[in-house]
Amino acid sequence: MTDRTIRWEHDGDDAGVVVLDQTRLPHDVVEVVWHDLEAAAVGIETMQVRGAPLIGVAAAHGLALGLRTDPSSLDVAVDRLLATRPTAVNLRWALERARTTLEPLPLEDRAAAARGFARLLADGDAEACRRLGDAGVELLAAIHARTEAPVHVLTHCNAGRLACVEWGTATAPVYVARERGIPVHVWVSETRPRNQGAALTAWELADAGIPHTLVVDNAAGHLLATGQVDIVLVGADRIAANGDTANKIGTSLKAYAADVHQVPFVVCAPRSTFDARCPDGTAIPIEERDPTEVTEFGGVPVAPPTTVARNWGFDVTPARFVHTFVTEDGLVGVDSLTAFLDETPSGGPDA
Amino acid sequence: MTDRTIRWEHDGDDAGVVVLDQTRLPHDVVEVVWHDLEAAAVGIETMQVRGAPLIGVAAAHGLALGLRTDPSSLDVAVDRLLATRPTAVNLRWALERARTTLEPLPLEDRAAAARGFARLLADGDAEACRRLGDAGVELLAAIHARTEAPVHVLTHCNAGRLACVEWGTATAPVYVARERGIPVHVWVSETRPRNQGAALTAWELADAGIPHTLVVDNAAGHLLATGQVDIVLVGADRIAANGDTANKIGTSLKAYAADVHQVPFVVCAPRSTFDARCPDGTAIPIEERDPTEVTEFGGVPVAPPTTVARNWGFDVTPARFVHTFVTEDGLVGVDSLTAFLDETPSGGPDA
Repeated sequence: MTDRTIRWEHDGDDAGVVVLDQTRLPHDVVEVVWHDLEAAAVGIETMQVRGAPLIGVAAAHGLALGLRTDPSSLDVAVDRLLATRPTAVNLRWALERARTTLEPLPLEDRAAAARGFARLLADGDAEACRRLGDAGVELLAAIHARTEAPVHVLTHCNAGRLACVEWGTATAPVYVARERGIPVHVWVSETRPRNQGAALTAWELADAGIPHTLVVDNAAGHLLATGQVDIVLVGADRIAANGDTANKIGTSLKAYAADVHQVPFVVCAPRSTFDARCPDGTAIPIEERDPTEVTEFGGVPVAPPTTVARNWGFDVTPARFVHTFVTEDGLVGVDSLTAFLDETPSGGPDA
Repeated sequence: MTDRTIRWEHDGDDAGVVVLDQTRLPHDVVEVVWHDLEAAAVGIETMQVRGAPLIGVAAAHGLALGLRTDPSSLDVAVDRLLATRPTAVNLRWALERARTTLEPLPLEDRAAAARGFARLLADGDAEACRRLGDAGVELLAAIHARTEAPVHVLTHCNAGRLACVEWGTATAPVYVARERGIPVHVWVSETRPRNQGAALTAWELADAGIPHTLVVDNAAGHLLATGQVDIVLVGADRIAANGDTANKIGTSLKAYAADVHQVPFVVCAPRSTFDARCPDGTAIPIEERDPTEVTEFGGVPVAPPTTVARNWGFDVTPARFVHTFVTEDGLVGVDSLTAFLDETPSGGPDA
């Protein structure tokens, strides 16, 4: 778990930001280098990097690139980056903290400070995910103690290390379980329409040597009904103050099915994903993406040429379906969410 | 609604069975002709024809082809056809009725009688679907009377005319609504892994001029949560005596989501889909298909080359999530199912 998904090319003042181009996985493992703000913004928009935590960290890196070119461009750069992805709150969280840190500084200090902030944010995310994994592994350990068999996890999309700097959110408990010798098997949902499960989660679990099986999103009901899932672990793009959770489209279907079959549905997310200013799920904007993601597959049409499609990127799982949240500060039930949000956050660049 | 999905090539004794090759839709509208039992069996296995009602009718046609070649092959031919698809009960229903009809006959009469039986079965299916549409349209009419807006139907897979001889099951109420001037819009789920929604339902609705929008299967929760669906209409592959309903994988996820958001989830199926001998869903065999349907798309891999996948074709929706069944004999609630199954069936070759 030492490979980071984002890093500076070298220590020099002209260094670019190196990211793994996730649009090329699983077929090609290719890194791209961003040298300016626009490259970073387009990289976030086109999902070279994706996953709520990584989007926030990537935006901070993009801001550092922007301020290196023009130290007076703080507001313009923040606005450009904020516009890239509307649903993930981590983006706003990272950029607002960056602005608060950088605004008081003289222009000549802003570029270096922004770079330092980006590094700190990356370190903070890696640390938070590791601690989240330490908290979440207790859920897997308890299941294993009961069943004395491999723990079968169902996940959705990629809330893995590829969605973060290291460890991932939903995968962090899985990776920590492996360290502790708890056997885990992961059901990977392909996650239409962009197939991040098939392309990214299957790839990173294979890379880490974690047993896993790919299924279509439609298979979740059958898996849960037939006792083949012990726990559902997903990430989140934004969690409202009442616990309503926006995550990749289709997440709510897994939550409903888990509820019917009495399997715990668990949301793994760092504090940066919680939005205390958002009262409930109805206030979360749901990004709508290009309908050709639905009507075509790799450029090949799957529907008649005249077919109209809609392509929402996220859905909201009502809070009452969340068994528990796993955070860097431990397990948090929906009932304890208000107290959790009122606490002083531990760790991170604004601690 | 006059085009049938299966027909004899001409009236001659050497006629083949003409079917629309559904594996070629939506890109190519190509008919294939079966001249012997094996062509029919392979056509059912490879899903040139699919959909529970059409599989039963197609098997009866295949049996007629087999008995034309060898009138003494009744048992062998029935066994060959029964092995093609394990989940759909209509296949067994059609073949058992054929056997009961043909077994008492002298060998020299069996081929002609089998052909007559196949015709009668096709006519019976078309008639049943039409009557099912007449019953189901009342649900749409009631919604339209309340909302005075187009009725938004969510469906799954293809339970359309392409799954039957004419009219379809889940689509029959939609087609009848159009005749009656009730505006309807259909949300078409793409239906991974074989994309029958995108390829078949979108094609047949476009062909019939019914407004529709394609979405990924994952979108159902968002559509239901945001009030964009008035009713869920699906078909079935087998309905147990207690009402548990096997249908295309992913159907149960729509049922659970409809329940959470208090939208009626309605199963449209002719009597031939009800299996009185099957006590509940646990007794329904769930067909597992080739995992490359999941790991590849049109021959192009979507996952790393080493990825293992599982590919169940169906799931079971527990009876308590079914608002009502729509049949050729009217609407049947889960509570009335025992009485319905005890009634003498109306219409059909064994009436």
